Amino acid sequence: MSSDKEAGITAKKSSDFSEWYTQVVLKAGLADYAPAKGFIVLRPYGYSIWESIRDTLDSKFKATGHQNAFLPVLIPESLLAKEEEHFAGFTPEVFWVTKAGERDLSEKLALRPTSETLAYSIFSKWITSYRDLPLKINFWNTALRAEIKATKPFIRTSEFLWQEGHTVHATEDEAEREVMLILEIYQRLIEDYLGIPTITGFKSDKEKFVGAKYTTTLEAIMADGKALQMGTSHHLGQNFSKPFEIKYLGKDTQEHFAWQTSWGVSWRLIGAVIMVHGDDKGLVLPPMIAPVQVVIVPIFREKDAPVVKQRAASIGSELRSNGIRVHIDDRDEYTSGWKFNEWEMKGVPLRINIGSRDIEKNQIEFVRRDTKEKSLETASKLVETTRALLDKIQISLLKNARQFLQESITTVTDYESFKSVVERKGGFIRAAWCGRQECEEEIKEQTGADIRVIPFANNDHEHRKEEALLPCIYCGSKSKTYAYFARAY
Amino acid sequence: MSSDKEAGITAKKSSDFSEWYTQVVLKAGLADYAPAKGFIVLRPYGYSIWESIRDTLDSKFKATGHQNAFLPVLIPESLLAKEEEHFAGFTPEVFWVTKAGERDLSEKLALRPTSETLAYSIFSKWITSYRDLPLKINFWNTALRAEIKATKPFIRTSEFLWQEGHTVHATEDEAEREVMLILEIYQRLIEDYLGIPTITGFKSDKEKFVGAKYTTTLEAIMADGKALQMGTSHHLGQNFSKPFEIKYLGKDTQEHFAWQTSWGVSWRLIGAVIMVHGDDKGLVLPPMIAPVQVVIVPIFREKDAPVVKQRAASIGSELRSNGIRVHIDDRDEYTSGWKFNEWEMKGVPLRINIGSRDIEKNQIEFVRRDTKEKSLETASKLVETTRALLDKIQISLLKNARQFLQESITTVTDYESFKSVVERKGGFIRAAWCGRQECEEEIKEQTGADIRVIPFANNDHEHRKEEALLPCIYCGSKSKTYAYFARAY
Repeated sequence: MSSDKEAGITAKKSSDFSEWYTQVVLKAGLADYAPAKGFIVLRPYGYSIWESIRDTLDSKFKATGHQNAFLPVLIPESLLAKEEEHFAGFTPEVFWVTKAGERDLSEKLALRPTSETLAYSIFSKWITSYRDLPLKINFWNTALRAEIKATKPFIRTSEFLWQEGHTVHATEDEAEREVMLILEIYQRLIEDYLGIPTITGFKSDKEKFVGAKYTTTLEAIMADGKALQMGTSHHLGQNFSKPFEIKYLGKDTQEHFAWQTSWGVSWRLIGAVIMVHGDDKGLVLPPMIAPVQVVIVPIFREKDAPVVKQRAASIGSELRSNGIRVHIDDRDEYTSGWKFNEWEMKGVPLRINIGSRDIEKNQIEFVRRDTKEKSLETASKLVETTRALLDKIQISLLKNARQFLQESITTVTDYESFKSVVERKGGFIRAAWCGRQECEEEIKEQTGADIRVIPFANNDHEHRKEEALLPCIYCGSKSKTYAYFARAY
Repeated sequence: MSSDKEAGITAKKSSDFSEWYTQVVLKAGLADYAPAKGFIVLRPYGYSIWESIRDTLDSKFKATGHQNAFLPVLIPESLLAKEEEHFAGFTPEVFWVTKAGERDLSEKLALRPTSETLAYSIFSKWITSYRDLPLKINFWNTALRAEIKATKPFIRTSEFLWQEGHTVHATEDEAEREVMLILEIYQRLIEDYLGIPTITGFKSDKEKFVGAKYTTTLEAIMADGKALQMGTSHHLGQNFSKPFEIKYLGKDTQEHFAWQTSWGVSWRLIGAVIMVHGDDKGLVLPPMIAPVQVVIVPIFREKDAPVVKQRAASIGSELRSNGIRVHIDDRDEYTSGWKFNEWEMKGVPLRINIGSRDIEKNQIEFVRRDTKEKSLETASKLVETTRALLDKIQISLLKNARQFLQESITTVTDYESFKSVVERKGGFIRAAWCGRQECEEEIKEQTGADIRVIPFANNDHEHRKEEALLPCIYCGSKSKTYAYFARAY
């Protein structure tokens, strides 16, 4: 409750997006900068949002047969180097441990940039027979990648909280189904809980995970028109099972190399929630993941304080016993106005104001965080009304975000329009593409926009049946697909 | 399910404790060695026990007003060095990051051996007023300490899962109450959930946490007669608040340095469960923390397989809907005998065998893991019987462990007996001590036993009212207290 928090958000989301974002992160008490450059600290409020996301995902993973496990953060260099393409992709940003106490280590140890190599060297010991498959393991941990670019909390930091899933299957098909199952779990989390619509599809070969056969992705649009990758799910084929010798004896009594997947989402999702739903007053949290869904502020003077506080407590316990996450702010040392600002900045979806008059009239005042609408409701329908309002907020946030996404997609048919849309409007630019990496690279170089996603055929929002595939937006030769280009975080 | 697991435990707990322990860890599928020396991997079964412990503790922490947060793993050297005594205690075992990619870092970064220094440099920014206190934060993370001695999974590894709590208070008294509150939470977890009795008290100044004013501890005895420190809760006084400038403006409008505590338990608790309750067949898990409390093994031939499997499923769902954690092992590719051995090795507290005859007779066969007792019970009382048996097992494990602890405490009145008990019997040696570090050090040097705990006055199991305090067991001068000595892990 230090003075910087009392100040409120001073930057406007519409005119100074980057400064606005930083202020929300710091002033809503989500995160803070750590002493080592490029690192952040998650404060309790920010961590509780991560706990919400983690618990939601964790139960979905477990319900689909995944198990959690733990791997050390240190990986011997020789192991990391075992899959060359993968190693080359990560080495520029690897932190290296070279000393323990005063001793120099005989082999450098990498801080986990991701755990494929470490996990697979161990999986190869665990898997010998078809009976050991599928192996579906998830790790809740952090990844470390030394960032040279400027840090943005949740979006770009040198250490980040995430989960990384690693599965091993007997067949290519089964691995493919796993890739899609996870993408579906991610999409449900991101849409149904975080209220953020995404475009799903493939990454181009240039943008896929180093070492993967292919990468599927979920891409969202932020309020400033830049795209954000929300999560990825990779089919690794046998690219790792061969160097790491993950083999199994099949029912056919023959040895086979296994098929693998890996996938992850990170606390970047919190960054997306801030950017998509936040407003000039601060954070706006979707009820499904809000650590506090309803804050109750008793409004009292000294003489009626006990009665009003008691009423606040009874409202709180009624909601709590119905599974609603409630916080009662009955502190004496802050004014009601200060509390309203504080909880608005922290994005609590619904506020209940309760004073003596409300008690007399058996009414409750609700204030929605998203629309600021106030309504007076009868106290006898407390739980019903609260549930209905939380549902409305959840639905409304997704609806608005969906409309913004639709408006952010521009189909272009010539390269001049492409460039102009990138510059003037931003968002996703939908264009035909020949599939050649040269075109992709030159477009990126000239406009800063790269291919975010090649939508699955049935997932291209803009696709109309009668629409013919135009020539490549850049080189004019025959196209393979539509792709969504954007400048991105 | 690879062949090493089929082999079963071949070492005896009574005659080859260390080898027995390692076999249980590896063959029950709890953990495995990682490629980097001194590190281990937690397999899903081991991790699920950690999840049980974590969830139990986490809800106790939250119920007493603690919140979780996140700190990076890397700490700049300058920060770690800010409290000199603390720094000197940890530097020999610190892993240092000196490079990122190809670049040499301008300042070395330590991998967190513990987070006091990092947390407090940040707390000092968050705390300005009495209104910001108390601050009670917990971190679920790992600590890294380069171990030179031989590794023992869960007991001594270079990285370990733990929680570290850090609290800041306005007064010394309040910090003192926090230290004791946490010790009580730990004791409840360890006794009521893990079934392990402990002796609580103070560490000697020699053994206390580096930088603490004093350290309280919980000490348990393992089956080989060696003591194990189960957890510690430290009063830090103002030893960190002064160098880190954690100050608050009091109601008296004066600035004050704050009072602090820190405390932690680690996955070492899993090691204790193995050592205390395990037997020659493998692990024995207390029902309260067993990830699987009841395993159901349907016993069938090809012709009655569908009926028996269906019955197993219906028993499973009845138990599950009553909140009991159940696993049904209806795999076709393993025999019942193989499954019995497997689940005994994994320590599942209760097994239900179900075959056609049991279905006909409306009966269920229960097998207790701890005593191996079998009983036939009527199927109509399935849930009641299961609950009663799980309770019995939980109580029985603690009772046996308590008896063993009592038998492991030997009060000695002369130094010759002291040495002889250390050599021949082990366990805790209760002896009078003058309080001087020289005696403590010389005893340690000569016998390998150090002071594990100086029991709180009302917590000295052996203390009789009429007992006079004898002279110091080593130097013969006037004693200050009884202390519990032991060789320890």
